[in-house]
Amino acid sequence: MNTVKIILAGPRGKMGSEALRLIEKTENFELVGCIDRKHNGMKLKDLEGFPALDAEIYTNAEEAFQKVDADVLIDLTSPEVGYKHTRLALENGVRPVVGTTGFTKEQLVEIESLVEQKELGAVIAPNFAVGAVLMMQFSKWAAKYFPDVEIIEKHHDQKLDAPSGTAVKTSELIKEVREAKNQGHPDEKETIQGARGANDDGMRIHSIRLPGLIAHQEVIFGGTGQTLTIKHDTYHRQSFMSGVKLAVEQVQKLNVLVYGLENLLE
Amino acid sequence: MNTVKIILAGPRGKMGSEALRLIEKTENFELVGCIDRKHNGMKLKDLEGFPALDAEIYTNAEEAFQKVDADVLIDLTSPEVGYKHTRLALENGVRPVVGTTGFTKEQLVEIESLVEQKELGAVIAPNFAVGAVLMMQFSKWAAKYFPDVEIIEKHHDQKLDAPSGTAVKTSELIKEVREAKNQGHPDEKETIQGARGANDDGMRIHSIRLPGLIAHQEVIFGGTGQTLTIKHDTYHRQSFMSGVKLAVEQVQKLNVLVYGLENLLE
Amino acid sequence: MNTVKIILAGPRGKMGSEALRLIEKTENFELVGCIDRKHNGMKLKDLEGFPALDAEIYTNAEEAFQKVDADVLIDLTSPEVGYKHTRLALENGVRPVVGTTGFTKEQLVEIESLVEQKELGAVIAPNFAVGAVLMMQFSKWAAKYFPDVEIIEKHHDQKLDAPSGTAVKTSELIKEVREAKNQGHPDEKETIQGARGANDDGMRIHSIRLPGLIAHQEVIFGGTGQTLTIKHDTYHRQSFMSGVKLAVEQVQKLNVLVYGLENLLE
Amino acid sequence: MNTVKIILAGPRGKMGSEALRLIEKTENFELVGCIDRKHNGMKLKDLEGFPALDAEIYTNAEEAFQKVDADVLIDLTSPEVGYKHTRLALENGVRPVVGTTGFTKEQLVEIESLVEQKELGAVIAPNFAVGAVLMMQFSKWAAKYFPDVEIIEKHHDQKLDAPSGTAVKTSELIKEVREAKNQGHPDEKETIQGARGANDDGMRIHSIRLPGLIAHQEVIFGGTGQTLTIKHDTYHRQSFMSGVKLAVEQVQKLNVLVYGLENLLE
Repeated sequence: MNTVKIILAGPRGKMGSEALRLIEKTENFELVGCIDRKHNGMKLKDLEGFPALDAEIYTNAEEAFQKVDADVLIDLTSPEVGYKHTRLALENGVRPVVGTTGFTKEQLVEIESLVEQKELGAVIAPNFAVGAVLMMQFSKWAAKYFPDVEIIEKHHDQKLDAPSGTAVKTSELIKEVREAKNQGHPDEKETIQGARGANDDGMRIHSIRLPGLIAHQEVIFGGTGQTLTIKHDTYHRQSFMSGVKLAVEQVQKLNVLVYGLENLLE
Repeated sequence: MNTVKIILAGPRGKMGSEALRLIEKTENFELVGCIDRKHNGMKLKDLEGFPALDAEIYTNAEEAFQKVDADVLIDLTSPEVGYKHTRLALENGVRPVVGTTGFTKEQLVEIESLVEQKELGAVIAPNFAVGAVLMMQFSKWAAKYFPDVEIIEKHHDQKLDAPSGTAVKTSELIKEVREAKNQGHPDEKETIQGARGANDDGMRIHSIRLPGLIAHQEVIFGGTGQTLTIKHDTYHRQSFMSGVKLAVEQVQKLNVLVYGLENLLE
Repeated sequence: MNTVKIILAGPRGKMGSEALRLIEKTENFELVGCIDRKHNGMKLKDLEGFPALDAEIYTNAEEAFQKVDADVLIDLTSPEVGYKHTRLALENGVRPVVGTTGFTKEQLVEIESLVEQKELGAVIAPNFAVGAVLMMQFSKWAAKYFPDVEIIEKHHDQKLDAPSGTAVKTSELIKEVREAKNQGHPDEKETIQGARGANDDGMRIHSIRLPGLIAHQEVIFGGTGQTLTIKHDTYHRQSFMSGVKLAVEQVQKLNVLVYGLENLLE
Repeated sequence: MNTVKIILAGPRGKMGSEALRLIEKTENFELVGCIDRKHNGMKLKDLEGFPALDAEIYTNAEEAFQKVDADVLIDLTSPEVGYKHTRLALENGVRPVVGTTGFTKEQLVEIESLVEQKELGAVIAPNFAVGAVLMMQFSKWAAKYFPDVEIIEKHHDQKLDAPSGTAVKTSELIKEVREAKNQGHPDEKETIQGARGANDDGMRIHSIRLPGLIAHQEVIFGGTGQTLTIKHDTYHRQSFMSGVKLAVEQVQKLNVLVYGLENLLE
């Protein structure tokens, strides 16, 4: 395999430092530069607690893309910064792999036209956890044959929103194929309000919040005499890195924009 | 082991016919009579589809207890009939094993005084499924150490009430020992109403209803870095018979009223 | 929808009687004849305990296909009988839907050439449980991205073989795509023999046998920081009927042989 | 509540640093001294990355117990060191809370006689995870009524031994009450060796090893028509701290040696 020369944005962030570990332990990945808000001109190995890598740090992203000979940008920072980096990367002939849920439609359209103009691949994904993405794809597939479905998602009790973003996304994918149906007995009655969970187009979503839990979801399909369950458990944010790795490998063969990791998982 | 001579009420009912199978296959259990709404004077073996047992059928319960030499009554019929049978059994020196959720406090007090007067054991239990009763006892125990708990109960989609009776009963037992607590993040927000389930004294109960499912419950306790889950799956109403067997065996050593199978499970 | 006229083989068998219920409750399915080893010339409604259907019973399958105007044959009997019926159906212009694991390669080749000659659709499937088939397909898909996989299958304790046929079939499908790998730590040690389960090409299969269980399987994929689990629970043999229904509906649009329900589930 | 003055051994170790966090965040716990292999005479706050606590560090344990006025010793280090500290603590009037699986019978007898002589409480536990200990206790209880049981334990794929220590311990507890039984069908046959797992006195234990997993165990009991499952999931070593906290609180009311956390969990 050819070596992939990578510029990493945000190497000190939670996700960035995981990406750094991924690059380090992947044989044909090579870190050639970093974009960071500080430490301009230093090398990564100069930062305390960081691996002994010679990659230079740039606070000016444009300068990084111009001075460093790179194949791919990995950016798992914020939507604002990520958008700027994506454009700069493409303009300088570097293929971006970006993790974000925050790009607007307009931004995506602009990136797409830049991708076409430059004939460069790009991968933008709201979720890089391969397991979670497969769970959603399998759920969408199963819903064609099992219109009765309930989603149970479980998270630590510091989470603010219920249902989780992944549960809502799963439900949206299911709705694309599921025949509309109001589940449960027509005369069913809640003796304590909320027992039957959130009613989302007749499907039900249940949010468990307990200390100890991390991030878990199961999608249960019921049919006569059987149930089919698809379950994903996240134990650590490292879970995102298998998807990042896949995207870095695939983006080099692409000359289009791929939005969503599912489109790389045939 | 000594043979236990048993009178069975309602041998043609759903639960009664399971009790019949239990008696048949238990070596030291012997069916000596049946109480039924019809077929007076016939023998069980005369009924189509029933085992070749000589036990005589009585439509008059009092007559059954007076004519037949029996040790134990098994009654899994209705509260009204069950109450009448329980009194008649005790008055005639037969120990009752009764499955019902429907006795009033007054009725239980009356039965208790009859038990004391006759110095005969009696077992009355709302639930004879040993596994379900253990699940509830374990949950009560665990709640002392894990005040954060959520109950997920799953049933077929023909069930009318949510939460299930077992879930409500489990929650009541937990409340006896759990320190009051409003679970989840204080600022948590349901973006779809009902996502967080039924709020029962700060605990949460979630009711899943899907075709295919039978009767299932899991009680999940969360603590720092860990979760403890107690789960019971019912696949068939035969599940009640292990508890009936235990009660028949134990009632003969008793001279008090035991209410609830849990009190036989030390 | 057009009415589908169906000949059912083996209406008194375990699977056959479930197929009968399926035909009865599906609006556009019509039973037009039965093939049975006895009761020639009788009507289904003449048999005790059977629904009030006028469909005539034939002990001679050829006669059935010649006398009755039918669209589809449903055969869930035995491989020997099923093979004979499949040929006769095709020769008489009836599309067969056959559930069997027992056809030889030679038989399948012969059926295929008959299908081509007659330009008639046919569906032959070893497993009609849609949920089980999806579990296997999802597992095959997931194994591309997660080479670490263990299968846990759970059955009642009267089952003779371990692992189950479904587990073996799942493992075969996974092997088609999974990169070969000896899972677990290279130096792992069983302090009690068998703890790590059956070693199937480096994957591990575990067979649980307990009273109460029916037929369950989960396939667990592990990756850094995450696991993905695909689980199928069978509670009743009715679970096969959704697949039979789908096959009956699809076979009418086909003019080829489809082997395996998965090929009808896009 | 009265303040509990605590000496902590090994504050820089994996478990020790968790104990430090426990002490910090528990209102009535106060760290009054540390025993460490180095940094004699320094204060905890002098160590980089440690909380701003004035507790002094001693490399000589005897000196620590003599100079510091303490109620309780927490020692989660090694068996050799732990044994020495336990003796020294008791001799100096400090109640020890010790986590270890490694004390010999002779050592326990000696500690017990020292406890009696000094009339001081002591808690020694092989496992401080309350959830794991409850799982084992519940399993022991359930096995009285369900002699058919299988244990499935799941760990990360870097684990060397199978089955896990917790599975073996659970099995030992179950054997104390379970009637001997060879589970499964008498004629069952493994078509791939090991499928039925480790045979431990007729019970079966199955060890799953996958990347992503942390430490999980489920104990499944099967009876006619039902299963009962007790499951513990460990996500983080913090899970041990709830048991340490409980032991510190309870040891002050004790004047005997309690071996095993289960004896504090009535």
